[in-house]
Amino acid sequence: MVVTIIGIGLIGGSMALTLKEKGFADSVIGVDAKEEHQQKALELGLVDEILPLEEAVKKSDVVVLAIPVNACVKVLPQILNWVDKQVVIDAGSTKGSLIAAVKNHPKRKRYVPTHPMWGTEYSGPEAAIRGGFVNKATVICSKEDSDADAVEVAEQLYKTLGMHLVYMNAEAHDVHVAYISHISHITSFALANTVLEKEKEEDAIFELASAGFESTVRLAKSNPAMWVPIFMQNKENVLDVLNEHISQLRKFKACLEKENYEYLQELIENANKIRRIIK
Amino acid sequence: MVVTIIGIGLIGGSMALTLKEKGFADSVIGVDAKEEHQQKALELGLVDEILPLEEAVKKSDVVVLAIPVNACVKVLPQILNWVDKQVVIDAGSTKGSLIAAVKNHPKRKRYVPTHPMWGTEYSGPEAAIRGGFVNKATVICSKEDSDADAVEVAEQLYKTLGMHLVYMNAEAHDVHVAYISHISHITSFALANTVLEKEKEEDAIFELASAGFESTVRLAKSNPAMWVPIFMQNKENVLDVLNEHISQLRKFKACLEKENYEYLQELIENANKIRRIIK
Repeated sequence: MVVTIIGIGLIGGSMALTLKEKGFADSVIGVDAKEEHQQKALELGLVDEILPLEEAVKKSDVVVLAIPVNACVKVLPQILNWVDKQVVIDAGSTKGSLIAAVKNHPKRKRYVPTHPMWGTEYSGPEAAIRGGFVNKATVICSKEDSDADAVEVAEQLYKTLGMHLVYMNAEAHDVHVAYISHISHITSFALANTVLEKEKEEDAIFELASAGFESTVRLAKSNPAMWVPIFMQNKENVLDVLNEHISQLRKFKACLEKENYEYLQELIENANKIRRIIK
Repeated sequence: MVVTIIGIGLIGGSMALTLKEKGFADSVIGVDAKEEHQQKALELGLVDEILPLEEAVKKSDVVVLAIPVNACVKVLPQILNWVDKQVVIDAGSTKGSLIAAVKNHPKRKRYVPTHPMWGTEYSGPEAAIRGGFVNKATVICSKEDSDADAVEVAEQLYKTLGMHLVYMNAEAHDVHVAYISHISHITSFALANTVLEKEKEEDAIFELASAGFESTVRLAKSNPAMWVPIFMQNKENVLDVLNEHISQLRKFKACLEKENYEYLQELIENANKIRRIIK
């Protein structure tokens, strides 16, 4: 099969690597708005050739959109205009807006909305790695709204990456990711800003930063071009979780202010229940 | 040298392993309030024998306190009462209260206040590992208040663990760790509570939880017996950072509510500056 990857960055580039190595793709065409990304993707062997969007879509069996979700909303309807039998998949972190954008498109059934739940805080073609997706989940949304053969190709693609599949509708997806992914990024961005604001002695941070600090602040290195559109599109759900998070932090604040250490102990014991869920 | 480790858990146990293997300690005596920890520490070969506190101190050249900071405050003056030439070191995450507790003790100069900046979210003797401390920093506080030979032993001990040394006074230490360590734990506890509160479908968390979620919530598994006393002892500094953190989160909230995405972009770009500080 010929696979086009639109956006040859962390996600698109990592997919390209494995899809070619495992033989899912006979060849990979890259499409990217940035010339330096095109160059780098060819140099790193992520893609076999670079083509303009329309030409790439028309030459492909499978088209994967791995660009920020605001760009997806604009490009997806256009791609479907050029589609005949091709399967179009996106890898975006929000699903509601995108599905709404092509709701009445005559080729809607060639599109399979998906979200592979893997990433790192790095971006661009140099961030592409092997094996990142392995044992992670991919969400496939509202499969009944896509052609059965298109869903099957999407499933095969993600299985080739070593992922397992989870099915849900767009609304449920967008609620869950607000809890599980989007809020983690906001807390990490805010934590970085807190420390940068309060701690002027950067050398001290550098010297003392321990593994705990690094792991909670790691996501703060994430790319705003990707994350601002995600927060825009998932605004209501993110606000809902953010309000809860601020009120949870206020409980810790109140415990300290009132020296209510029994309740502080309870709050921490409750947080420990997360052990049930993540190893 | 004979080294006594008081509290044979994650920190004490990991120290014991390396100090023996590298020949810093000819033998390691363990002291632990919990019988199952004593048993386990012997079984795992972390210590050579278990003795009662007073006997252990009197038989030792070096005594390392690796117990929660509230227990340290009680036990340290008692230990100094039994000390002749021994060097006493603590590994606690707060320094001000502990130093204040022995300020006028006649044996104060045999005590070296230190804080090795490493840990994991696990506790107990089974959590002890090799190599954890390597390349991390240890803070040595107010070295001028300790005997030179005692400081030298402490320095040798931490160098044996593969750590580098940073010197500061207790006040500076307690401010820095509030930013770099304590607030990370509070955000992680609060994030776990947020998700547990809002997300009743635990299966969804389990299925979808990605690396980003795991890294920000990992510290929420940390032991309350260790952390409540730390927050108590460093209350003022922690409250100061927590207030800043809540106000940083409110900026994200306001951006979303007002759909001010330019400012949201700026907030994230500012957070990205953390790249300068952590790799």
